[in-house]
Amino acid sequence: MQPHGSLTSKIAADYPWAASPLIVSAPMAKVAMPKLAVAVSKAGGLGFIAAGYHSDHLEDLLEEAEDLLLEGKGDAAVESEPGVPKFLPVGVGFITWSASLEKALPSFSKYCPAAVWLFAPPKGFQDLIPWVTKIREATSSRSKIWVQVGSVSDAVEVVNAIDPDVIVVQGLDAGGHSLARGASIISLVPEINDKIRQLRPYPKKQADVLAAGGISDSRGVAAAMALGAQGCVLGTRFLASPESMIAHGYQKAIIDSSDGGISTVRTTIYDKVRDIHGWPEGYDGRGLINCTYLDDLQGLSEVKNRELYREELSKGDMGYGPKGRLTTYAGTGVGLIREILPAGDIVKSMHEGVQKILNGQRQLKL
Amino acid sequence: MQPHGSLTSKIAADYPWAASPLIVSAPMAKVAMPKLAVAVSKAGGLGFIAAGYHSDHLEDLLEEAEDLLLEGKGDAAVESEPGVPKFLPVGVGFITWSASLEKALPSFSKYCPAAVWLFAPPKGFQDLIPWVTKIREATSSRSKIWVQVGSVSDAVEVVNAIDPDVIVVQGLDAGGHSLARGASIISLVPEINDKIRQLRPYPKKQADVLAAGGISDSRGVAAAMALGAQGCVLGTRFLASPESMIAHGYQKAIIDSSDGGISTVRTTIYDKVRDIHGWPEGYDGRGLINCTYLDDLQGLSEVKNRELYREELSKGDMGYGPKGRLTTYAGTGVGLIREILPAGDIVKSMHEGVQKILNGQRQLKL
Repeated sequence: MQPHGSLTSKIAADYPWAASPLIVSAPMAKVAMPKLAVAVSKAGGLGFIAAGYHSDHLEDLLEEAEDLLLEGKGDAAVESEPGVPKFLPVGVGFITWSASLEKALPSFSKYCPAAVWLFAPPKGFQDLIPWVTKIREATSSRSKIWVQVGSVSDAVEVVNAIDPDVIVVQGLDAGGHSLARGASIISLVPEINDKIRQLRPYPKKQADVLAAGGISDSRGVAAAMALGAQGCVLGTRFLASPESMIAHGYQKAIIDSSDGGISTVRTTIYDKVRDIHGWPEGYDGRGLINCTYLDDLQGLSEVKNRELYREELSKGDMGYGPKGRLTTYAGTGVGLIREILPAGDIVKSMHEGVQKILNGQRQLKL
Repeated sequence: MQPHGSLTSKIAADYPWAASPLIVSAPMAKVAMPKLAVAVSKAGGLGFIAAGYHSDHLEDLLEEAEDLLLEGKGDAAVESEPGVPKFLPVGVGFITWSASLEKALPSFSKYCPAAVWLFAPPKGFQDLIPWVTKIREATSSRSKIWVQVGSVSDAVEVVNAIDPDVIVVQGLDAGGHSLARGASIISLVPEINDKIRQLRPYPKKQADVLAAGGISDSRGVAAAMALGAQGCVLGTRFLASPESMIAHGYQKAIIDSSDGGISTVRTTIYDKVRDIHGWPEGYDGRGLINCTYLDDLQGLSEVKNRELYREELSKGDMGYGPKGRLTTYAGTGVGLIREILPAGDIVKSMHEGVQKILNGQRQLKL
């Protein structure tokens, strides 16, 4: 048995540049681009690039990531010798009900990103079988398979369908899209951990469990380790980094917000006004409450709300905030985020903070 | 600064029989009676008796607790020498929009329970000022003031209104009543901790923070410590103890349930069918999904649902479970509870489990 919460040798082997616990930046659609992912990996974490709803520009994105990885130094190196297959120390995330496997595959053959994150299959997790089979084929299983789940039954289904390398356990605190109903990682991580160890008893390969949802600083990371996670995924925290591809108004709203359980809400209206349709049943997204949501609550029609949304876009940065209308996905940990920090510094502060917490606990007399 | 997550000297002084971290059984209405509270305190935790909606029988309850404390041995002793004011190492919890301070006060003067837990004032936390003033008067401040909150703004309001000894931070995973909207303890505990330290900077008295909601075993306790809590409150876990005053059918439903984020739901229907009215706006309760909820979802009238509920009561234990109708409040951690255990053993398993987790983390090389 591995020491509780440690970077297991499997994770250490799969992401050899990364420090323990594994700190991951989430593949946030439209926001997590190569700059963010590379900054996180270079600082000893694992950064994900969002292929998002489509896979059209994946090759360009990975080429950009490769260029950034070759620039300067960092913990994450890129192997780029002639004759040696490439391997990029970043991941790629897909919203699988919408993205195209066929379009994505050539990029996997060419660049072999360290991990692929599969989220929200249209019907069930068996829909992921072709993704997993072909990506493992294309990369000789060097691209590790990550699947995001939001319930114990999802985790069981995933293990039985595709035996993933990593299960990302997303709690209800998470910003952006996830299951509309669920628990936080407090109960979800230990229960899923127990369950997958029952399904695949040692010495069978067991998926590593990573925690996501509500974690914004090292206290959340240390908590996730205590719960049995081998690492953490952070989304909202990385929104407040210069490497994120988001509007300044969005970032300001993140910094200005507090009390995330009250200032955010789970809803589908923030997709509807942007004409994003097709999320499988049972999903919605958590974002900061603004006039789009409040008007929806008051019964404003979707058509009118969408019209107002489009007008609001012309306001740019001024369209964000509690009196604005623009979608501002964020998790309940938003109140812990008080400054914009370079993504690499965020990763390092997590590792240093966890070290301090563990040192403090070492002095405890229980 | 205290070591992170330790039983601070203040808590150690206030509850001298208790071990670190402080393990607390919640004052669950109708369920947490003297037997449960005393068993928890005797095992080195702090047990709460639910005065609940009324305070009519409080003196009887405290007399019973005193008798139980005098029986046999345990970590919690009761001082009962002539001339020395009594002090009971258990707490008492009130649902303050409904309970009567005047009826409760004589019992405080007579028995001085170690703590009083004030929940859900009718309008705002300033409603608690008479409670706090008179209880401190009646017990020379020996009964410590605990207040339960579910948001950062609530915590700020409480500190400003009454300067409590303990703030119980209840996350959205909790079973039974709490704010209908909110975050889990993952983001709520650190943000509240930061905020109250801003409001009352050292060396001013700072409230201790305890975490509640979704914690069912030592992994949750260790996580809460990492988040900065000085202890944990557990409700659902103690339902599955012989000392709980609940039906066997209720206990069986707890043991049989899994995947609490999916198998439980927050709703007000479980109060309505039992003719419990008057909860302040913004509150509801989390319970296992059964036919009462599903029929409500399908549009069954409240009157008819209540009628069916009353009929179901005659089925006794058979009225519980997913096909039953009887209210079965439970938190999302319900899936981690797999056996009925004596309440004292639950407390001890928490302390032993936390010790193991910390020992494991001591071996980590980060």
